[in-house]
Amino acid sequence: MLTLYFSPMACSLASRIGLAEAGVGAEYVNVDLASKEMSSRGSFLDVSAKGKVPVLRLEDATILTETPAILSCIADLAPGKKLAPPPGTGERYAFQEWLSFLGTELHKQHLYPIYSPKTDARVKEFARSHIDEPLRFLEDRLEASRYLMGDAFSLADAYLVWGLILAKRASPAFDQYPSLASYLARVCMRPAVAESIAVERTMLKRP
Amino acid sequence: MLTLYFSPMACSLASRIGLAEAGVGAEYVNVDLASKEMSSRGSFLDVSAKGKVPVLRLEDATILTETPAILSCIADLAPGKKLAPPPGTGERYAFQEWLSFLGTELHKQHLYPIYSPKTDARVKEFARSHIDEPLRFLEDRLEASRYLMGDAFSLADAYLVWGLILAKRASPAFDQYPSLASYLARVCMRPAVAESIAVERTMLKRP
Repeated sequence: MLTLYFSPMACSLASRIGLAEAGVGAEYVNVDLASKEMSSRGSFLDVSAKGKVPVLRLEDATILTETPAILSCIADLAPGKKLAPPPGTGERYAFQEWLSFLGTELHKQHLYPIYSPKTDARVKEFARSHIDEPLRFLEDRLEASRYLMGDAFSLADAYLVWGLILAKRASPAFDQYPSLASYLARVCMRPAVAESIAVERTMLKRP
Repeated sequence: MLTLYFSPMACSLASRIGLAEAGVGAEYVNVDLASKEMSSRGSFLDVSAKGKVPVLRLEDATILTETPAILSCIADLAPGKKLAPPPGTGERYAFQEWLSFLGTELHKQHLYPIYSPKTDARVKEFARSHIDEPLRFLEDRLEASRYLMGDAFSLADAYLVWGLILAKRASPAFDQYPSLASYLARVCMRPAVAESIAVERTMLKRP
């Protein structure tokens, strides 16, 4: 059995969506990122020294971190679902390219400083005032294309849908991106996506 | 013929090192990142709308961006050199994991704000004062292991060597990481690495 270590509505949501889209069963362990305590008891730092979610524990006990690597692995667990181009093909590099863009330009450069409790007000403000740069690039892409990789949903979209949920809350200018807004609404109607988001939102609401 | 669009000592150095290690010939086009002008004339924005280096133009004219995707592609062009685990293997995810960590935690979260002309003083200062977090993680890894992936050099090391050159200049505390210092010296002695760095440093010195 796989295990996904996550925190509700953190970037690990993309990996939960990936597992749901792939139809791959997993155990889910909720991690308190501040205290590093887990719902299954014990310290999360014993699972991964990075102390960050997502972490995917594979059947053979291998520990995998970093959303781009985890999403690639999940896609390959269910090749019939075509959630990523097959390894070793030219299209696979384009898939990796999107995962890298989302991880660096959208997530780490903007969403992370805006939402992290570790960054100070000036850093948050700088990130908030510059998030339009990746959003504009993504808007142009999704004006021309139904999904990041073209006509078909891939797990790069699982990462982006999480990013857009947070970006929408962070940027008052989100309305200026009609293609992003309709893409977000469309992807959120996929049953696996809708259910994954609903599960984690419910957890956030609990006392 | 491949073409690598680069800027001297920018993160595209990792891709130059990759090509040199792979023994793959390429044309090199120097991009002025401020004006977007190229040594081969014309606007770089016509090559890539992102306007960022590295860009690798493949034989079939495919344009590939993002260091993790480009390094993966280069490694696969010369499988006999074993610069990355083969696509579709479990070890390949670990390779992708390192590329993602370097791209997000070291590069985009710290080196980018420290060196980018676009970020302001407060943002630079915050990044400089927090760079020890990824450096400590890397120090622990390289105390236990000769290279990021274990006993053998991979193109994840090509990315890290560029990162450490910049980190050493940015962090007065770099001396506190003896394993990083000896790793950097050791990797810089590889002929392909030494020559790649020498070529780009010479370009920086030209008037």
